[in-house]
Amino acid sequence: MKCELISVGTELLVGDTLNTNVQYLSRELSQLGIRVHFHTTVGDNPKRLEDAVKIAFERSDLIITTGGLGPTQDDLTKEVIAGIYNKKLIQDEKTKEDLLQYFVNREFTMTPNNLKQAFIPETAEVLYNPCGTAPGILLREQGRIIIMLPGPPKEMTRLYEEAVLPILRKDQNQLVLSRYYNLSDIGESAAEDRLLDLIDNQTNPTIATYAKMGEVLIRITANGDNEAKMNALLDHYEKIMLERFKDNIFSFSKKSLQETVCQLLIDKNISIATAESCTGGLIASQLTEYPGISKVFGTGLVTYSNDAKINLLKMNRETLETYGAVSEETAREMCVNLSEISKSRLNVSVTGIAGPDGGNDEKPVGLVFIGICYDGKNEIFKYQFNGERKTVQQKTANKVFHLIRKSIVDKV
Amino acid sequence: MKCELISVGTELLVGDTLNTNVQYLSRELSQLGIRVHFHTTVGDNPKRLEDAVKIAFERSDLIITTGGLGPTQDDLTKEVIAGIYNKKLIQDEKTKEDLLQYFVNREFTMTPNNLKQAFIPETAEVLYNPCGTAPGILLREQGRIIIMLPGPPKEMTRLYEEAVLPILRKDQNQLVLSRYYNLSDIGESAAEDRLLDLIDNQTNPTIATYAKMGEVLIRITANGDNEAKMNALLDHYEKIMLERFKDNIFSFSKKSLQETVCQLLIDKNISIATAESCTGGLIASQLTEYPGISKVFGTGLVTYSNDAKINLLKMNRETLETYGAVSEETAREMCVNLSEISKSRLNVSVTGIAGPDGGNDEKPVGLVFIGICYDGKNEIFKYQFNGERKTVQQKTANKVFHLIRKSIVDKV
Repeated sequence: MKCELISVGTELLVGDTLNTNVQYLSRELSQLGIRVHFHTTVGDNPKRLEDAVKIAFERSDLIITTGGLGPTQDDLTKEVIAGIYNKKLIQDEKTKEDLLQYFVNREFTMTPNNLKQAFIPETAEVLYNPCGTAPGILLREQGRIIIMLPGPPKEMTRLYEEAVLPILRKDQNQLVLSRYYNLSDIGESAAEDRLLDLIDNQTNPTIATYAKMGEVLIRITANGDNEAKMNALLDHYEKIMLERFKDNIFSFSKKSLQETVCQLLIDKNISIATAESCTGGLIASQLTEYPGISKVFGTGLVTYSNDAKINLLKMNRETLETYGAVSEETAREMCVNLSEISKSRLNVSVTGIAGPDGGNDEKPVGLVFIGICYDGKNEIFKYQFNGERKTVQQKTANKVFHLIRKSIVDKV
Repeated sequence: MKCELISVGTELLVGDTLNTNVQYLSRELSQLGIRVHFHTTVGDNPKRLEDAVKIAFERSDLIITTGGLGPTQDDLTKEVIAGIYNKKLIQDEKTKEDLLQYFVNREFTMTPNNLKQAFIPETAEVLYNPCGTAPGILLREQGRIIIMLPGPPKEMTRLYEEAVLPILRKDQNQLVLSRYYNLSDIGESAAEDRLLDLIDNQTNPTIATYAKMGEVLIRITANGDNEAKMNALLDHYEKIMLERFKDNIFSFSKKSLQETVCQLLIDKNISIATAESCTGGLIASQLTEYPGISKVFGTGLVTYSNDAKINLLKMNRETLETYGAVSEETAREMCVNLSEISKSRLNVSVTGIAGPDGGNDEKPVGLVFIGICYDGKNEIFKYQFNGERKTVQQKTANKVFHLIRKSIVDKV
């Protein structure tokens, strides 16, 4: 099956928006064995959009558009496509009701242009949108499939996973099985280096690595028509993965490190508290992103200034003056005092220099001390991170979650 | 001048690489007043690349390709384009010498396939590459310009800046001026609704709206050859913008709401403290993302549990028991107590139900109370937000930054 992706939106053509949608869809479609032959991006211009769709129709079996389904006058993807194939736009009652409900829930007044989103080309299938106002649309025409998805990545990816993927899977006959390995505390090139012998000779299964800050995701994908054989093949590779990355694998589920650690804390009922200086609340906020964390997390302190460290954390002024706010001693005292205040089993302290200012030769930007006090046992870790302020903060948070996990897992 | 960008590389079509090149070039070209009408991505396939170039040639004055200029057999951009226009490939002596030197400098042995990079279509201009082995190529053909650039972003951007930009500047006579308006506390469709009369008739200037969570960016762009006239035109529209969005515009610089508010706090030297329940440190972490915020921000509390509210914020247990943790009364007491603890001028408290659990008919998920205590004056705001847990937290943080700004600006 040959596929073309058409991205619609002038914001892409003037460079205001980075087109992450095509990367996501290209990866997903490749997984299904669908060959993406072209990406085309076109602005909010009916004539050029029409030309792009017509060209794609000649050379592809599957066309997926993203963008141009919203309520504004600029949004004309479905109008243009309906026009090409002489389809009337008909109001979809369920979409209309969803829209009305959406605005009632938000106590917003619905402007009339929003109702435009409820109109669907006749004969098309509506792909209901669980997290936005514009539904997706699937049109079958002369043996081709045209799928229109909204542009905002969050809506697009969710709609793809929930509505499009099952349809494409049914259309494809080949089985595809993937396993995922989430690694922390290792970079992508180091991970790939340990896999070179496998990657060099890969045909089936295929091995791919993906990096995001502080994490590497390895995906191993088998193709075939015999599920048992494919699983045996994947089992063989799983053994290798567990050998080579035993200190790094924290999840097999595409869950993030943060999500994995939060669930671990909840499952093991380990109460946790935080005292943050240079990360300024980032660790607490990553904890509280996770639903149900209130079971184990109650107290977080952002003691950004020395005064706050003294007043809230009851720190000794002398420690700060003698060793400095960024020091092993400060990290230790923050952590020990926090455990007294919070009565939590696991206490985390962070102090460091996120930059861009505040560093010197002895204590450069990126220097971070992390304290972990778990069931009365204290450990202080020292790191030198690289990058801009936000990167240093994010890397510190990732390291903290890695250390929390190690502390818990190693103790058991 | 109408332009089309063609990205060449199978890695883009399988989603291994995010296409940042087109965003960079689109932005740069828009700045020059060159209208980018299409992006096309095609794999390392000669037939499909040829088709893509031929289509682009019909509809564009300027074609810029990226990728496919390297030494491997996959790299065939210039071979295909030379083929279309019947150009022989001729060895360029300077490129050959540069190549030899490049390998001598790195003490690498040059493999023979590298010499392929020194062959240039006859009549074309060589754009010498200061940071890689593949030079760029400029070909003028039947009134069109075809520019071929290497794919690695570092090489591409440098070659664009040093070699391409001066050529395009000379070719263009038209000026382009843009102004930006950043809005908070309004949705994109509501913003557009207030601009419909202008958008409907737009030719020059053009008006575009872009949404990201909690913010809307409006761009007004004028074209012409007389800078003074263009500025007068933009001034006229600016007056309209300021009238219609006086409560919403927080910046003219594309800076985010958070950055704008942090800079405002620093500039006015207004100390700030936070006490967060449902946002769990998100507001503190957004404050501390901003360099230099330590001048005004010292104390943040994440009082996620009732115990933490009582121990850290010295809250009355009775308030929590009588009115509940999510109530106007709790938000007020959190805020008042925080101002005593922090001694800051501006104090923010947040309590709410981020979900997915914890809501009921009386207090549904998404209910949030925000307290602002500024120079002793207390105000409590009540909101009902929609969306998933993370969305509710993010919307709450956006609203807090909006309220901080309003409190400061309205007081002055």
